[in-house]
Amino acid sequence: MTIENILKRKGDDVTTIAPEATIKRAADWLRAKNIGALVVMRENTVLGLISEREIVHAFSRYGETAGSMLVKEVMQHGVITVSPGESINRVMNRMTNHRVRHVLVVRDGELAGIVSIGDVVKHRLEDLELETSVLRDVTTSRDWR
Amino acid sequence: MTIENILKRKGDDVTTIAPEATIKRAADWLRAKNIGALVVMRENTVLGLISEREIVHAFSRYGETAGSMLVKEVMQHGVITVSPGESINRVMNRMTNHRVRHVLVVRDGELAGIVSIGDVVKHRLEDLELETSVLRDVTTSRDWR
Repeated sequence: MTIENILKRKGDDVTTIAPEATIKRAADWLRAKNIGALVVMRENTVLGLISEREIVHAFSRYGETAGSMLVKEVMQHGVITVSPGESINRVMNRMTNHRVRHVLVVRDGELAGIVSIGDVVKHRLEDLELETSVLRDVTTSRDWR
Repeated sequence: MTIENILKRKGDDVTTIAPEATIKRAADWLRAKNIGALVVMRENTVLGLISEREIVHAFSRYGETAGSMLVKEVMQHGVITVSPGESINRVMNRMTNHRVRHVLVVRDGELAGIVSIGDVVKHRLEDLELETSVLRDVTTSRDWR
């Protein structure tokens, strides 16, 4: 199972925000879409990612003035990108190692989707459970020969 | 593998907050501890959970006045509790079905820990990979008989 399998099911919808938008506006989008992160883009270039965590930390640091701060002031810069052909297992390990909840999927240099740890987990579990079940069948059928 | 296995590794540390604390204070704790949720308690009773999501949504809804709102006004009420003996697979399915990232572990009526989807995923993966590997050995060894 690869990242492509996840995208086929969940689609390639990515909610983006401009770097000059306010943090309040980012919070509004997260609430409206009930999602955990937005991709920060200028024209066709990905600049970073803003998640619930950055907003909560800005709110803690700057209090009531946080709302008028700009997305580019608090966003994550080093966003992890993956290719559609990467195995879900590999991506899950990368997410765990980097302690991130979202990675961007890039196909031929273009943004092709966003995958959360929830998406990865769900599909990876199904994958492993299928393999376990197949192998269990193999061992069981041999017992009956 | 059960929830007990996760607690043995990560410990039973739970960061709690009072229902009358402000949302700003909750954000401060999340940032200080770099965690995603706090358990809302009064004396020894669990009242709910406040996560990054509730804070971001309050910030979106109430703007600059959100900081002085109280935890009890925005917390999640129906917190999911699990017992230490529950299998990780079962808990993962419950988290996926309810779309929550945290569950509380209760032992003999007392709070014994908090488990995130990240914790569950990590251990569940190790568990399934172990089983797959054992079954693979069984089928392989039979081929060699």
